[in-house]
Amino acid sequence: MPDNRQFCLAQRPADRVNADTFALGTVPAPELQAGEALVRTLYLSLDPTNRIWITDIEQYMPPVQLGEVMRGYGIGQVVASKNPDLAPGDLVNGMLGWQDYSIACPSNPMQVLPAGLPITLPALLNVCGGTGLTAYFGLTDLGAPKAGETLLVSAASGAVGSVVGQIGKILGMRVVGITGGPEKCRHIIEDLGFDAAVDYRAADWREQLAAATPNGIDVDFENVGGQIMDAVMRRMNLHSRLVLCGLISNYNDPVPDMADFSVLLMRRITVRPFIILDYAPRFAEGAMRLAQWLMEGKLKHRETIVDGLENAPTALNRLFDGDKLGKLMLKVADPA
Amino acid sequence: MPDNRQFCLAQRPADRVNADTFALGTVPAPELQAGEALVRTLYLSLDPTNRIWITDIEQYMPPVQLGEVMRGYGIGQVVASKNPDLAPGDLVNGMLGWQDYSIACPSNPMQVLPAGLPITLPALLNVCGGTGLTAYFGLTDLGAPKAGETLLVSAASGAVGSVVGQIGKILGMRVVGITGGPEKCRHIIEDLGFDAAVDYRAADWREQLAAATPNGIDVDFENVGGQIMDAVMRRMNLHSRLVLCGLISNYNDPVPDMADFSVLLMRRITVRPFIILDYAPRFAEGAMRLAQWLMEGKLKHRETIVDGLENAPTALNRLFDGDKLGKLMLKVADPA
Repeated sequence: MPDNRQFCLAQRPADRVNADTFALGTVPAPELQAGEALVRTLYLSLDPTNRIWITDIEQYMPPVQLGEVMRGYGIGQVVASKNPDLAPGDLVNGMLGWQDYSIACPSNPMQVLPAGLPITLPALLNVCGGTGLTAYFGLTDLGAPKAGETLLVSAASGAVGSVVGQIGKILGMRVVGITGGPEKCRHIIEDLGFDAAVDYRAADWREQLAAATPNGIDVDFENVGGQIMDAVMRRMNLHSRLVLCGLISNYNDPVPDMADFSVLLMRRITVRPFIILDYAPRFAEGAMRLAQWLMEGKLKHRETIVDGLENAPTALNRLFDGDKLGKLMLKVADPA
Repeated sequence: MPDNRQFCLAQRPADRVNADTFALGTVPAPELQAGEALVRTLYLSLDPTNRIWITDIEQYMPPVQLGEVMRGYGIGQVVASKNPDLAPGDLVNGMLGWQDYSIACPSNPMQVLPAGLPITLPALLNVCGGTGLTAYFGLTDLGAPKAGETLLVSAASGAVGSVVGQIGKILGMRVVGITGGPEKCRHIIEDLGFDAAVDYRAADWREQLAAATPNGIDVDFENVGGQIMDAVMRRMNLHSRLVLCGLISNYNDPVPDMADFSVLLMRRITVRPFIILDYAPRFAEGAMRLAQWLMEGKLKHRETIVDGLENAPTALNRLFDGDKLGKLMLKVADPA
């Protein structure tokens, strides 16, 4: 069996991931049992939620345990199989982990990707995977969007945010994004078609937010939390919707993210939190709609691809530095 | 015209209402214009939201201004009328204000109460007025209750809470109430039919809460906020509902009521805030259903009635001391 490099969780970080958080080791790839397939990792998705997985707090899946291979979602390719449904060469997605090889089996199911789509693997992992599906269901189902309403997206040049804003435009909304720095502001307006951008790194960002939302905010697609969410809530309209997708400003912080509930009450803002796994029964529906928009050219996408499994830990911190555009992912190997 | 005693807002309190908050004065009741009716105040409802009305913060109506008559909802009786729809002797409800006499007119409409109901005026003001309607629409519409689910009600022996819990029992739910002291705990179980009570004044109230909710909490009808809401959120089930009705623990406090949003996200707890005025188009429906349950003996009610308009300011503080049972109201005059 080939060598299998893998990152195991060595120490829970108090704040940012650091050099002691993961240990990189090499073991032989496992022998296949009946019903299993060996999958070579091609691309790994790097997401803010990865940081949650290594913290020992209440969360939506059990946290990764010390000594366990770091959990990771990605696209791989079957290289050997004792499962009649998975043939060598098949492209699959699923929980591959931060390693070169993983096992597809009933307790770790992987889905075969349709062959021959005119969509690159990075675009598939981005727009038609968990990222795009999060944007799609969060906005179209929980946001209850209406044409002409104002949609506010935080972390707007990020993976989920950039898709949310573009879907908002497809649905006829006024779309305002919050992002960091002039280049990202330019990007979401000129490249992605947002109506307005707010630069949270500018001293006058609160004034920018007010100017960009003259009719208030009807739907907040919340990715950030903290001060930014607080300022957004104070621009939200009566009976508006706060789709709670993430609170990235807080994931490296041991203190919980507190928010003012009295604003919710006075404005009757409904808070609708979700995790994309809630929508698993509807993934096919969402992926098809997203693939259609992608092929029609209605959804622009941008990936920041870091080369080499060994760079996973340092790459993960880029999510919290704002030091990337679009979807952050790791390229581990080329398809055969 | 008769003398009209009235409380005007003299000074905004920093925390609790005190002797300087209102000024009691006497003016002649106003002369009637065409289309108006003069209404004698009989009962005034005292509610936590009254405290919000005198604070200069964002809220769902303009705050009462300095020098204005204190806003108050109640039941009155028409004593003179230049409006063909309102006859002397008619009982009405509406915004009477903290005064002996008020004017019903197009800018301050009052509704005539049906004559001859076998329901006392205090019970009408309590169960079929804003209090009962708040309980009814909050639970049945926003709570999305199902038989067999667990309903948690904070401020459970209070005006709204005691009706919420009883409606929960009518709908077949397991109902747990949080209230202060052994006597109120006994009351909600023995008199109102709750399944369990948690005494928040006991040192082991968190353990009591855990023991009373072995299957977690599906619907939280939140009246309190603060530490109690935080503890309740940590007992709530995946995809449960938090009906946000009030945050009474915070109304005398100049610091906003902050709550941990990450729990909402991890458990996908939907937050549904409301103000009863949102349901104005459905008031008749709710009042009829509540009156039916009342006449069938399915809704017990309790009023704490303070006699005399002059006692309004001190009576209001009792809402925040827990020093009353059921609905607090002021009796100003007997009907003619």
